[in-house]
Amino acid sequence: MPIHPDHWYPLAWSREVKAGKALGVHFAGEPIVLFRTESGKVFALEDRCAHRQVPLHKGVVDGESLRCGYHGWTYDCSGQCVDVPYLGRERLPNGVRAYPCEEAHGLIFVFPGDATLAAERPVPALASVGNKDYKTRRFGRAVKCHYSFMHENLMDMNHQFLHRKQMGQMRARSLGRRRGEGWIEVDYTFVRMEGKQPAGEALVFRGSKKREDQSDQSVMTIRTEYPFQTLQIHSSDGTLVMDLWINYVPLDAQQRTNRTFGLLSIRRPSIPFLLDLGWPLLVWFTERIFAEDRTIVELEQAAHDMQGDDWNHEVFPVINELRELLRSCGARTVIPIREVSDLV
Amino acid sequence: MPIHPDHWYPLAWSREVKAGKALGVHFAGEPIVLFRTESGKVFALEDRCAHRQVPLHKGVVDGESLRCGYHGWTYDCSGQCVDVPYLGRERLPNGVRAYPCEEAHGLIFVFPGDATLAAERPVPALASVGNKDYKTRRFGRAVKCHYSFMHENLMDMNHQFLHRKQMGQMRARSLGRRRGEGWIEVDYTFVRMEGKQPAGEALVFRGSKKREDQSDQSVMTIRTEYPFQTLQIHSSDGTLVMDLWINYVPLDAQQRTNRTFGLLSIRRPSIPFLLDLGWPLLVWFTERIFAEDRTIVELEQAAHDMQGDDWNHEVFPVINELRELLRSCGARTVIPIREVSDLV
Amino acid sequence: MPIHPDHWYPLAWSREVKAGKALGVHFAGEPIVLFRTESGKVFALEDRCAHRQVPLHKGVVDGESLRCGYHGWTYDCSGQCVDVPYLGRERLPNGVRAYPCEEAHGLIFVFPGDATLAAERPVPALASVGNKDYKTRRFGRAVKCHYSFMHENLMDMNHQFLHRKQMGQMRARSLGRRRGEGWIEVDYTFVRMEGKQPAGEALVFRGSKKREDQSDQSVMTIRTEYPFQTLQIHSSDGTLVMDLWINYVPLDAQQRTNRTFGLLSIRRPSIPFLLDLGWPLLVWFTERIFAEDRTIVELEQAAHDMQGDDWNHEVFPVINELRELLRSCGARTVIPIREVSDLV
Repeated sequence: MPIHPDHWYPLAWSREVKAGKALGVHFAGEPIVLFRTESGKVFALEDRCAHRQVPLHKGVVDGESLRCGYHGWTYDCSGQCVDVPYLGRERLPNGVRAYPCEEAHGLIFVFPGDATLAAERPVPALASVGNKDYKTRRFGRAVKCHYSFMHENLMDMNHQFLHRKQMGQMRARSLGRRRGEGWIEVDYTFVRMEGKQPAGEALVFRGSKKREDQSDQSVMTIRTEYPFQTLQIHSSDGTLVMDLWINYVPLDAQQRTNRTFGLLSIRRPSIPFLLDLGWPLLVWFTERIFAEDRTIVELEQAAHDMQGDDWNHEVFPVINELRELLRSCGARTVIPIREVSDLV
Repeated sequence: MPIHPDHWYPLAWSREVKAGKALGVHFAGEPIVLFRTESGKVFALEDRCAHRQVPLHKGVVDGESLRCGYHGWTYDCSGQCVDVPYLGRERLPNGVRAYPCEEAHGLIFVFPGDATLAAERPVPALASVGNKDYKTRRFGRAVKCHYSFMHENLMDMNHQFLHRKQMGQMRARSLGRRRGEGWIEVDYTFVRMEGKQPAGEALVFRGSKKREDQSDQSVMTIRTEYPFQTLQIHSSDGTLVMDLWINYVPLDAQQRTNRTFGLLSIRRPSIPFLLDLGWPLLVWFTERIFAEDRTIVELEQAAHDMQGDDWNHEVFPVINELRELLRSCGARTVIPIREVSDLV
Repeated sequence: MPIHPDHWYPLAWSREVKAGKALGVHFAGEPIVLFRTESGKVFALEDRCAHRQVPLHKGVVDGESLRCGYHGWTYDCSGQCVDVPYLGRERLPNGVRAYPCEEAHGLIFVFPGDATLAAERPVPALASVGNKDYKTRRFGRAVKCHYSFMHENLMDMNHQFLHRKQMGQMRARSLGRRRGEGWIEVDYTFVRMEGKQPAGEALVFRGSKKREDQSDQSVMTIRTEYPFQTLQIHSSDGTLVMDLWINYVPLDAQQRTNRTFGLLSIRRPSIPFLLDLGWPLLVWFTERIFAEDRTIVELEQAAHDMQGDDWNHEVFPVINELRELLRSCGARTVIPIREVSDLV
């Protein structure tokens, strides 16, 4: 189930593309160069020179254009070739493909599919990220697995067993699920089986699960809204205390690796500096959790590769529905790299 | 010539599987988890959870069962799934394959083939290992070559030329060979061409080859008794002075790597502590010999891979018969990984 | 376009093959052993023993023969097997392939193709290398690209843009090209656009490009004379001030890597020790240039591999003619490794 290219995908953090610099990234095997021109705007082009296909990100940003580092062929922000230093202007060759590109929430979004659809599909809105009642942590890295394993990992909270050393023994209770066009979501509450709540977790959950008998119960909602995913925790009074937006962008053509971009927003408590004080702990805690998840999904991918087939035996209904959703929203076939280039 | 799975193969040293711990190993591409339960017994299961195929050796030994580290699916020692924490007992899924498993001589033996044959085929007996007149060294490691190259290396003592730096120039004389159902053996004596006998070697051979004119001649017998191999040295009075048992277990599905398990038993001399004193020297000597053998058989495998075919041009009759034996005892085809799983 | 084997190719520097030693090298996937016998002459044989195909370069040079390090099979300089220590002389097996081999200019040349053609095709003459008016630097290393990318890189001087940091902004002007049977050459002059001439470059060019208005203009001639390439700079008075001979030898069967052998001869100025003084600077300068070239051609190869096809869009006529030349001089097909061996 290849990912569908007709969506906005984050391909880099804003801070990775400095003024006057270029960065080479990938979407499902397609090499894409992001560059920030003199005017400060970021553009996305096919990352291979029309001449000898060397990556343009090794070149030079020159005002509002990008110059290949080999023979100096120059492209404007729409991908058109505007200069070959040793060739008359009247004989300029075709340029390279340009991608719709938008900067938002500290991310650089690219629309890798049919560019004519980009305008009608909005860049995802991330309400908590811009809200000063919340503090946001940006995290993520390359993970060597198919993006679907990431969705399934997060949505199946029975995998709390994996985090038993970080969180103690907790049991998820699924409260119910909802489904619509292009999305699915599920609610959970949690019961601590044994062990003490760790301090890092308390920061997130506000210690609301301290006593099981308490009627005060937080609810966690995990939602896949193709192609991204969110995880929200509402306290019993309805306050959104944690808001995670996360996206898994395939890197290689076979889509067996992804780069994860996560924005984790935590609501500031009434004594606001408490959160800042506890932040290093939260960073450490979330990093540990993420590392455990990464290890297991990479093992899942390795098993899948060795078997050469999908042997998954799913018993949890919401995950079976999620798999169906990812399949139905996915691309019908892997976009052949040649065809992409012929669109230029 | 894939190895035949209907035999007992050592897959680990006993000391590698601690109480309450699991270890992931491989037999010809099949992932197998060995785990020692609370009662101290070792069991072998297919090393992939029935759910998402992640390796069970990353899980937790829980009493007499093994719990997957991801969502906590639990298997008993026969591979049956006995618990999925978030699923009713009446709906438990199928489990995973179990393998006959026996511990002996400090090794963990597994029968990877047709389990119904395991009972009638005995785990190899290693007489010298349990005999206190002998001191035994356990050694081995992964070697990047087909197991047959190991058999051929050891049985063809004309490869003494390879060890000229360790042993000086020695010439092997083949005295004759015998062959039966599933085995072949050959006898050698040795003549020193030049150089002095090294101290490490003297420990093994008892200096019996000091003078060539001497009638006192040790005889070395190398035997392949499918699938393992032995090398015994008898002194002229018939005493077994050295007794090596060695097995080369294919690791990958293509069987281009193996893990070697060797037990080298040396008869204690009349002044017994002499052997203990000389032991570090013997360890060093045998390690050097083994390293030279490993280097050359890995080069042989690399040549074979590059050629994509067997170009072997054998001129030594016993090796041609050995090759025939390994072929006739081997499996007809590589066991497809799918079929193995379907047996579950 | 596989390289044509019916030419002399340098496979090593003379200093790499010490007296009594063997060296393993490759030509387009063929393993070749070079060894210098007691008499000081260098020979080239197929680098795999006829017995078990282990590389002969791991063996021992013994007088005028080469002995395999495994079982001691011995080959003379024509590749004939002259001894198997444990076999009668009357039953000796076939040997290995021998290649015509000549030592010249500090290089070891081998003729990997049809040996009957070797005598009529001369080893390349390198006039400046033996001339004491010139000082010669030998350089080169493995580069991960097809040899044709190297030819195209050097011949297209519009790639000066790549070296803008080392050389400042210079523009090449193509003066014209000539073509004959098996060769093509092109002349250039250079104009400095901006920046100052670096000291390392001045050593080579004699500062002749200091002023653009000056009629005194050096001419650079780049010539591919299949399969090697030369670059010569003549000053305005016709003196050859720089003379480069360079050859790109495919290492692997797919010919996606090459080993570059370059001899760069610089004419000594009237105050001769000036060149010796400046030599370290020249070494540093040429190394930097070569490193930039290597980086870009390896990126070109990586792009080619990813695309699985040649997407080159060449606009410079001389390079299109060069490509045509390389294709027409190249081998029709990759020589199957099996066939090569059958020639023995």
